[in-house]
Amino acid sequence: MTPDGEARLLDPFLKPDTVAIIGLSRSAIGSAVSVHTTLLDMGYEGKIYIVNPGMETAPGATVCKTIRELPDAVDLAIISVERNSVPQTLEACATHGIRSAIVITQGFADADEVGVRLQGEMDEVIARTGIRVLGPNTIGVVNSPARFTSSFIEVTPDDLPVGQVSQSGFLMMGHHLVTNELAGYCTSIDLGNGCDIDLIDVLQHYETDPSINVIEVHAEAIDRGQAFMESASRISRNKPIVALKAGRTSAGQAAVASHTGAVAGQTRVADAALRQAGVIQAESAEELRMLSKSLATFGGMKGRRVAIMSFSGGGAVLAIDALDRAGLELADLSQLTKDKVRRLFPDWMDVHNPLDIWIPVAKDLNDAFPLVMNALLEDEGVDAVMCIYCSYNLPKYDLYDASSYIRDLSAANRGKPVVCWSYGQDIEGFTRTIEEKRSAIVYPGLDDAAHALAALVRHSENMNAPVPPEDCPSADDKEAGRTSDAILDSARAAGQKYLFTEAFEILKAYHLPVARWAVVRSQEELECAAADLSEPLCLKIDSPDVIHKSDVGGVVLGVGKGQELTEAYRSMKETVARNVPGARFDGILVQEMAAKGIEVMVGMVRDPAFGPCIVFGTGGVHAEIMNDFSFRIAPLTERDAREMIDETLVSRILAGARGGQAADIDSLVDVIVGISRISMAHPCISEIDLNPAFAGPGGVHLVDARFILAGDEPA
Amino acid sequence: MTPDGEARLLDPFLKPDTVAIIGLSRSAIGSAVSVHTTLLDMGYEGKIYIVNPGMETAPGATVCKTIRELPDAVDLAIISVERNSVPQTLEACATHGIRSAIVITQGFADADEVGVRLQGEMDEVIARTGIRVLGPNTIGVVNSPARFTSSFIEVTPDDLPVGQVSQSGFLMMGHHLVTNELAGYCTSIDLGNGCDIDLIDVLQHYETDPSINVIEVHAEAIDRGQAFMESASRISRNKPIVALKAGRTSAGQAAVASHTGAVAGQTRVADAALRQAGVIQAESAEELRMLSKSLATFGGMKGRRVAIMSFSGGGAVLAIDALDRAGLELADLSQLTKDKVRRLFPDWMDVHNPLDIWIPVAKDLNDAFPLVMNALLEDEGVDAVMCIYCSYNLPKYDLYDASSYIRDLSAANRGKPVVCWSYGQDIEGFTRTIEEKRSAIVYPGLDDAAHALAALVRHSENMNAPVPPEDCPSADDKEAGRTSDAILDSARAAGQKYLFTEAFEILKAYHLPVARWAVVRSQEELECAAADLSEPLCLKIDSPDVIHKSDVGGVVLGVGKGQELTEAYRSMKETVARNVPGARFDGILVQEMAAKGIEVMVGMVRDPAFGPCIVFGTGGVHAEIMNDFSFRIAPLTERDAREMIDETLVSRILAGARGGQAADIDSLVDVIVGISRISMAHPCISEIDLNPAFAGPGGVHLVDARFILAGDEPA
Repeated sequence: MTPDGEARLLDPFLKPDTVAIIGLSRSAIGSAVSVHTTLLDMGYEGKIYIVNPGMETAPGATVCKTIRELPDAVDLAIISVERNSVPQTLEACATHGIRSAIVITQGFADADEVGVRLQGEMDEVIARTGIRVLGPNTIGVVNSPARFTSSFIEVTPDDLPVGQVSQSGFLMMGHHLVTNELAGYCTSIDLGNGCDIDLIDVLQHYETDPSINVIEVHAEAIDRGQAFMESASRISRNKPIVALKAGRTSAGQAAVASHTGAVAGQTRVADAALRQAGVIQAESAEELRMLSKSLATFGGMKGRRVAIMSFSGGGAVLAIDALDRAGLELADLSQLTKDKVRRLFPDWMDVHNPLDIWIPVAKDLNDAFPLVMNALLEDEGVDAVMCIYCSYNLPKYDLYDASSYIRDLSAANRGKPVVCWSYGQDIEGFTRTIEEKRSAIVYPGLDDAAHALAALVRHSENMNAPVPPEDCPSADDKEAGRTSDAILDSARAAGQKYLFTEAFEILKAYHLPVARWAVVRSQEELECAAADLSEPLCLKIDSPDVIHKSDVGGVVLGVGKGQELTEAYRSMKETVARNVPGARFDGILVQEMAAKGIEVMVGMVRDPAFGPCIVFGTGGVHAEIMNDFSFRIAPLTERDAREMIDETLVSRILAGARGGQAADIDSLVDVIVGISRISMAHPCISEIDLNPAFAGPGGVHLVDARFILAGDEPA
Repeated sequence: MTPDGEARLLDPFLKPDTVAIIGLSRSAIGSAVSVHTTLLDMGYEGKIYIVNPGMETAPGATVCKTIRELPDAVDLAIISVERNSVPQTLEACATHGIRSAIVITQGFADADEVGVRLQGEMDEVIARTGIRVLGPNTIGVVNSPARFTSSFIEVTPDDLPVGQVSQSGFLMMGHHLVTNELAGYCTSIDLGNGCDIDLIDVLQHYETDPSINVIEVHAEAIDRGQAFMESASRISRNKPIVALKAGRTSAGQAAVASHTGAVAGQTRVADAALRQAGVIQAESAEELRMLSKSLATFGGMKGRRVAIMSFSGGGAVLAIDALDRAGLELADLSQLTKDKVRRLFPDWMDVHNPLDIWIPVAKDLNDAFPLVMNALLEDEGVDAVMCIYCSYNLPKYDLYDASSYIRDLSAANRGKPVVCWSYGQDIEGFTRTIEEKRSAIVYPGLDDAAHALAALVRHSENMNAPVPPEDCPSADDKEAGRTSDAILDSARAAGQKYLFTEAFEILKAYHLPVARWAVVRSQEELECAAADLSEPLCLKIDSPDVIHKSDVGGVVLGVGKGQELTEAYRSMKETVARNVPGARFDGILVQEMAAKGIEVMVGMVRDPAFGPCIVFGTGGVHAEIMNDFSFRIAPLTERDAREMIDETLVSRILAGARGGQAADIDSLVDVIVGISRISMAHPCISEIDLNPAFAGPGGVHLVDARFILAGDEPA
């Protein structure tokens, strides 16, 4: 139930009062790999039914021959019948009034054509009957508070306030590894093929589940990308979401048509989307576990300033490297802190961060350790403390055991994360002591500790980030939208695959700074148009029959006015007519070249899941090779656009590096936001390239535009 | 002793027959933190003396009042007297005939000015008496075969054939963590401040030590860089060297003057040097340990093709990501392999790499697991096998225990590495079994396993890499060297900080393709010179008093011949004279602009440790921002130069991307190798910038050159 008493979608899956196991073989009774065994071993207190026509009895459960024999009030069916029988089993469940089912059986859309068809049949049953399904191809759920699971392998319950959602059961079973916790989560849900219940359903459940403070996600694909972003953006301001995006190799990337498409592979789009939604990404299964435990333990971290206290100078140097890699800073210790600890150190040692405390500790740990640690925890310039110590779990080394100090002092100062790294002969005992009060964590490596701190900083930033305004098109935008829709409708009606002069018209409708142009059909029109334009000019043929203009003499650059222009016009018309016999002639585009400024690229590619992804970066013919791009999912605010610019190398050139004049960044922001608006308003545009766009001190000049229309092949 | 019977430098440090502990306090007898205790606990069988005027007796040792009372045949002194007494203690040891000493005492060059002075005094004693010293500021050595240590903390002996050398004791003490081995090495040497015995001494010792197969290095600084490269390059062809280079932040980087200097920070130079010397770099202390254990266990790996067998499909997807990140490949399974295992899988499952073996294993592990694993090990298209399995060390899950199969089948197929990753409730027991025969390794994460495989491939490549030819200057080079020396001598005699036209002369002497130029001092000379040059031309003022030429009108680009040239010459002379009153006039450089081709940069910065570091990459005014560079330590072969080009993004533009004409790569290789030769021949040149150099289809044109002379401030 939600706080306002509404029953929630996932409640029957996570805490059913009555469960029916359908498809359990007789050999599964007493077997180690069996839902029935696991449920009993976990101490589930609800009522268990088993449906099996050939079974007589089973311990702790009531056996029924058929689904129809089940009592009325079964909350959840756990189905593991062979795949061909799954659709009719679901149908029978629904008919019998069961509203929720976990389908463990494999061999559906994850497998062959038959499996795809069978999953389609499941979809049909779900749509028709309203039964809700988790799976197929899942081990289902583990929920510690209710001592309930559908897993056929034992998982030890935990009360760490982490809720896991995964596309594979392996995270559920191996999660405790590296975290020094029992299971490492209190609830876990394996989506399997996700034919019905999906990632967003689970996020929304965890959002209001009071036992969950941190949400941990493992996903190979995110299908409802825009819905995901909406939920994740909202949730991540309160509860951190940590995600491991698996399946990152290029093999599965879709073919794309434009520059923008080529640089914005699906992995980069998904990374941009997750980041924008406030999701903290982990790079491995181990990091996922450590980050979610860290966020559950510490909540957040105010700034990036870390103090290091280390039994080893060499270890401290490695810690500095790790902090640097993670984008953290060495705290400057206050004079007060230095004064407090000065007496512990020999005269010849300078007291600064990192503090190499071996000499004071070797002299008297009980004097030195708490004094140093307290001084660091009390220093207002320190946001977290990193402890590197020696752990010898042998009686003869008791004098050097700092573990209870770390435990107690961190517990007394929960506002500041205390992260630890140990070396020595036996770290297990020390780790147990240090983590006893859940106020400090021992990490397997210094980079793990540093990544955890960076994740804490990130979550604190998420919590404090301004809420972006609603994306409401202005009256001006609505007008531009109507104009553009008319242009697009007409182009699509004419069967155009991409836009040429129409792209400039749309950009102009949205008040973007297109270099001035005209389309002319005669020498007279040319002269008239040229009067308003500044040289140098370029000419491009406008014909629906000419795609690769340059190849047939359909592009001429750097033309001066007057006789030169007249001659170029005449010559192009003739050349194209000769090279492409019968080509229709819609006119010739005459445009100011305006190539003043730095070459940048602004573009959009429409991702099937996340929608329009805006790209900005170094432009020019070699843009893809230079690979200097930033990505965001539309709609964009001006702030987003500025961040996108800042993330690229070309931003430093735009800022006026090496004596160059600074470009007009505001104007560039307008272009980026404008492309976002166009992309949001016109879903029929699948890709946009403005490359190169010239960004100079006087503003941006758009001289090249390529709009590709949806559903069409690349030109 | 070496194989030929010669006593080796480090033998007295690693296996002394007699050792004297000098500076041991009375309280250290029986203390847990005491060399004396540790030596006894480790079972050292040599003779132990303790020098302490206030001590009567000590268990297992003979106590002497003074050094003079020691017997004649002491192999090694272990000194921990307070720092002021260290130099005279060393002196007394030397006088008494002790040839080797470990100085544990801290507070030398690692500390304050007094410490620096004291270390200087130590240096003087070492130089004068010939005593050899390890330290100061070290915990010394651990050597399992001799059961000897100078560490004051216990380390458990091991026989893993790893030799460690470190600048800090913490690696010695924490090395076993994550490796599932006792100590994780059989010998370890902490260099401390390294005032005498250094990294290269230890490398050379391990090179011929038959108990060492893998050398593991932790270094914060590498002082004798060129000697290091010479030794490491030779050794790494036989015994792999794995290194963790610590102290990577920019704080400590020296100020530099040129583009090349700015992009070639010390970390990048050191990384390039290590790589070139065949050293395998680790990114963390944990990775260092895992890589050295992996190399000690597997030796190498023939190719990059990995087969994955996994209890979990989701785990297999993560494994693919990890292999991809590490630059490895998914093996294509042979038809034979597929035929062998086909019967295990349901019809609807496609049999391919990765193999998701859960269904066959759940049915009958004893049938499925060895069949699949053997098939993969026998497949000639598979270079390594990655096993992902479930480890439940509980009797009820014995049916799913694959550990003894992994152990035995890997031991029977030692040619192919078997790397493992486990999930489940208890991996320790499984890990012990799997690693029992040292034929398979269980890693903490999939990326660890993938990095280990990549290191194995790297070592196999090192072993098979061609030996670079000796760098012998040709007669032609010697002639160029003499010409250039004369130019350099004259410039230095004139107090020049950098070279202008002289740089072109040196480049020309080495037959590098300088754009044609002349220096003219009059209108007549100008006309005469221009006759031989093609337009457009550029003019640059040549005056020792004008450093920033552009700022005072001393550079004009794109000048045509004839009146335009005459006018530009006259105007520049006047403008500079007006802007820099009294500036001397050595002439005006007239040069073909020849700006055809791609802008690249070739440069050199002389590293204090490693010598000339050659840099190649994207050129132009924004080269530093685009940050597209590769690095190598000179001397370079043509092969090195080609690799340098291939490592950059600009190489793809040079190859003729997007319809561009391909540049003449051979000509570019000549320039890079030429800069290497110039750098080797003329140590007085501290930095070289050729930026931009234009690389086109017709060859390279050098139009800009900046040579900075050693010992001078940047211009």
